[in-house]
Amino acid sequence: MTVLGRQMSQEMDEQPDALARIAGRFDSFVQELRRHGADSRHGLAVLARGSSDNAARVAAYAAQARSGAPVSFLTPSVYTAYGQSPEAYASWLVLALSQSGRTPEIVDLAVSCREAGALVIGVTNDGDSPLAAASDVPVVLGVGEEKAVPATKTVTAQMLAGLAVANALGGPRVAAVELDALAGQARQVLDDGDAVQALGMELAASGALALVGRGFCDAAAFESALKLQETAGIAAHGFSTADFRHGPVHLAHAGVPVIGFAGDGPADDDTRDLIGSLRTDGRLARLVGSGEEADIGLPTTTPELTAILATIRGQQLALAVSRARGVDPDQPEGLSKVTPTV
Amino acid sequence: MTVLGRQMSQEMDEQPDALARIAGRFDSFVQELRRHGADSRHGLAVLARGSSDNAARVAAYAAQARSGAPVSFLTPSVYTAYGQSPEAYASWLVLALSQSGRTPEIVDLAVSCREAGALVIGVTNDGDSPLAAASDVPVVLGVGEEKAVPATKTVTAQMLAGLAVANALGGPRVAAVELDALAGQARQVLDDGDAVQALGMELAASGALALVGRGFCDAAAFESALKLQETAGIAAHGFSTADFRHGPVHLAHAGVPVIGFAGDGPADDDTRDLIGSLRTDGRLARLVGSGEEADIGLPTTTPELTAILATIRGQQLALAVSRARGVDPDQPEGLSKVTPTV
Repeated sequence: MTVLGRQMSQEMDEQPDALARIAGRFDSFVQELRRHGADSRHGLAVLARGSSDNAARVAAYAAQARSGAPVSFLTPSVYTAYGQSPEAYASWLVLALSQSGRTPEIVDLAVSCREAGALVIGVTNDGDSPLAAASDVPVVLGVGEEKAVPATKTVTAQMLAGLAVANALGGPRVAAVELDALAGQARQVLDDGDAVQALGMELAASGALALVGRGFCDAAAFESALKLQETAGIAAHGFSTADFRHGPVHLAHAGVPVIGFAGDGPADDDTRDLIGSLRTDGRLARLVGSGEEADIGLPTTTPELTAILATIRGQQLALAVSRARGVDPDQPEGLSKVTPTV
Repeated sequence: MTVLGRQMSQEMDEQPDALARIAGRFDSFVQELRRHGADSRHGLAVLARGSSDNAARVAAYAAQARSGAPVSFLTPSVYTAYGQSPEAYASWLVLALSQSGRTPEIVDLAVSCREAGALVIGVTNDGDSPLAAASDVPVVLGVGEEKAVPATKTVTAQMLAGLAVANALGGPRVAAVELDALAGQARQVLDDGDAVQALGMELAASGALALVGRGFCDAAAFESALKLQETAGIAAHGFSTADFRHGPVHLAHAGVPVIGFAGDGPADDDTRDLIGSLRTDGRLARLVGSGEEADIGLPTTTPELTAILATIRGQQLALAVSRARGVDPDQPEGLSKVTPTV
């Protein structure tokens, strides 16, 4: 019998080791980037697509919330189609992420940014890739080849490496004690799958889902939505909890289930409150989070690392929903591992 | 008999006049903003929620593609929950948008940005609002009170006013001849509703939809998705066409209909190609655009103004789908006109 999502599941399971290795290098990453003058840069420009773009949301939020730096998500078509040059980013730190290091528009724009004077940090899983070659400081994830089409271990690895890049801009760093605990907490999440499996069964018949989070956890909401889209084929939509209240909340009243991700940071209570009030109104709403109200638990850590643990919960949910629907997340129709666009 | 969406429909119909008035003031807006030193600012920071945030995507793309300026979408929780100050935006132009001018976190953050030294342009429909008072240069839309919960006339007005703000940063402006034609083209779109009504009937049973666009048209895709969420209660999701190819395209293969928006700009062919190839694969895909392949037509204009006309098509689609589903878009459950968040 074929096990649905065998490859995806196996790569998910490699995450504690992968995170432990990157956590062990975290402070030396930060120091190396500061030696390159990262902390005198004016802002953080993100260059990524798909899961890598979601992973970068953790770095983007950290840059804003911890160092106060401006953040810009670069739009490749501005350069490829409209012929602009990225000169305005000369004094910026550019964080380019690509699992393969071969997504053409990411590599080309990284090269242009570096020529313009930007400090380019290429985060990739392949040290021999064009993106690594195009970087001032390549950050090689070293998490082993990722074979499954839905990216899992590279996404959480990108989140953690991206966080080091953001911390290099200045402001308080993630504490060593919490970095040291991360791998064990990831293992705890992976080993505790009953509640997420039950939720997967419950949601299997839904054609649509809304996933919400605020602060660092919005990255988990966006990435979990993408994972559900590309594995289970569910129209899952990621929202900032605040944006969700401004219109899309009508979806909950029209019957779309809502999953909230919330840690213990100062922005997370908003999500907890939203899920609580939807439940009171009799809507289908579930909380993935720390604390007693959670339907699916998360270990307690800093808000930035919660995003990583919540993302693993999202991967589990995508796998559980796919299996409950009888579809194989290892082979999503219409997808391949490297997607070139202009 | 109650006419479903009477209020929304009436306000949509006021758009040609509203756009004509703003188009007539476009060049004087740009000149006034340049007198305030807008063209020496380092970047464009956007401060908005919901429909206003989608409207700002036109300005954001114009700032990047036409003047090469960095663009940042400000995340209020960074300031409200994490206690950062927006000092890093001292040399930026801040574009704050709120129909009511009363969304608390937008007003508060606009005040902090101005105190930090940013040039704050508040775009609002109410010249007596706190946002207007908090601005260096208030831009009052003057499109008349908007009573319907789903924002329509204020969104296209914000798009056009925001474009003037972006053009004030430098680079080529939208040509007068095209601005002069805009109101007539908006009227033409509103008067030509048969195809969009037929599409509304066709999509009425769908629980989910994907709306895609690239370049300026991605604003139309995002805003149309939000309009469908908050009126028809459909899980409609807006994507950049390029991001859609990187994973979510699996949704099309799983049966989710895809609507593409495309004008005549250099980034629009990507959307036309995607819709064409999905059709070839037997998927349900429709094109809203200029040119012969379009299922629903759009007049030919500059890429930036196409976004406005495409947004009107999206409003028509939301109205048509709502009516076909027998729901009243004037009264979406769970929504009100001003949504406070922290």
